[in-house]
Amino acid sequence: MLLLFPEDLVRPGLARLSGRRLEHVREVHRAEVGDDLAVGLLGGPMGQGRVLRLEEGVLELDLSLDQAPPPKLPLTLVLAVPRPKVLNRVVAAAASLGVAHLVLLNAWKVEKAYWASPRMKPESLREQLLLGLEQAKDTVLPEVTLARLFRPFVEDELPGLVAGGTGLLAHPGTGGTAPRVPAAPITLAIGPEGGWIDAEVQSLLQAGLQPLDLGPRILRTETALAALVGRLF
Amino acid sequence: MLLLFPEDLVRPGLARLSGRRLEHVREVHRAEVGDDLAVGLLGGPMGQGRVLRLEEGVLELDLSLDQAPPPKLPLTLVLAVPRPKVLNRVVAAAASLGVAHLVLLNAWKVEKAYWASPRMKPESLREQLLLGLEQAKDTVLPEVTLARLFRPFVEDELPGLVAGGTGLLAHPGTGGTAPRVPAAPITLAIGPEGGWIDAEVQSLLQAGLQPLDLGPRILRTETALAALVGRLF
Repeated sequence: MLLLFPEDLVRPGLARLSGRRLEHVREVHRAEVGDDLAVGLLGGPMGQGRVLRLEEGVLELDLSLDQAPPPKLPLTLVLAVPRPKVLNRVVAAAASLGVAHLVLLNAWKVEKAYWASPRMKPESLREQLLLGLEQAKDTVLPEVTLARLFRPFVEDELPGLVAGGTGLLAHPGTGGTAPRVPAAPITLAIGPEGGWIDAEVQSLLQAGLQPLDLGPRILRTETALAALVGRLF
Repeated sequence: MLLLFPEDLVRPGLARLSGRRLEHVREVHRAEVGDDLAVGLLGGPMGQGRVLRLEEGVLELDLSLDQAPPPKLPLTLVLAVPRPKVLNRVVAAAASLGVAHLVLLNAWKVEKAYWASPRMKPESLREQLLLGLEQAKDTVLPEVTLARLFRPFVEDELPGLVAGGTGLLAHPGTGGTAPRVPAAPITLAIGPEGGWIDAEVQSLLQAGLQPLDLGPRILRTETALAALVGRLF
């Protein structure tokens, strides 16, 4: 699906694109005048865009946007900041799976350099979220929170997120099993490579999370995330 | 986890490594003499390897292998061959998730060039499977079947795989919902980018698969696979 931004709209019902997305439509979609493309307006409805003009430098689409985007999962993902190499994949996967709110949290085993990575900049995170939305045919960006300090977030913010729903702490070796159909909204915390340290586990449990053991297999973060979403929703 | 091969064993209980894995232990594990490493013997038990010698060109480990590898999922994954770029990730993810048997199947929308890719060679597939096993702390390779012809596999082999268990066809827009706790063994078919064509869907249904609709979100193959495994097991 091609995501359109408010500034692409020349007037209601007509979009004009140039640059990277124009090239993408030419080269990947191989669209021609008269073709219908699946499109969605960021934060708004989805539908079809019929190609009116496709020339060097300009693509015009006649829009009929009559579909609602898919509902978000009632899921807050609290993710210890992964290595930059892993971050992009996990952020895009979270958006494609329909995570409503993504919290990137510091932890003992999160290296300081991860926070300084260009991939942690808001525009880079947004780019990955947009890729995830395009993949999944969704138009609504998840909310993103950067929690650079573990304790203030876990002690002051997390109990409020968990209240009235279910909080889950993915942690191997705990033997914890989630309720088969947990009460929504769900808050799910996934640790860094190497796991949470004991003091972090204690803080997260005190904030209202229940331990959830994924079994003996250690999965990559984005694989574990998708498996948990498949299990919980 | 460090995977050991039968040829690494100098005698029972003593492994000698060189080359890439030696470098990995030096540089990533940063191991020193006396350290214990998590190790597993390909196709056999897992446990600890204590570093006896670590010099230029040789690593010796004193092994105590007393743990069984985690059980495989009773799952045959029938996967339309993905683009080479995607193949590696999906194969490693399938191994890490515990898929017992992986069938790489031709389909209408599988380009011929995919079959000719170096990544489809047995040694390349094996490398990705081993990476998945190391990630997940498992030692048992999944069985792999290359099914270059769709109809003979689906008409002659697939019904036998499905008999006595549950066959599922992941296919968007069908509205099908899997049984909440499907009878094992499970055979799960996942289509190519762009999906199965109608004639393929008909053949797969005739072979005994039930349609399973994953909802409105279109997920990347490895994300869909993990979500399905989380849902089914």
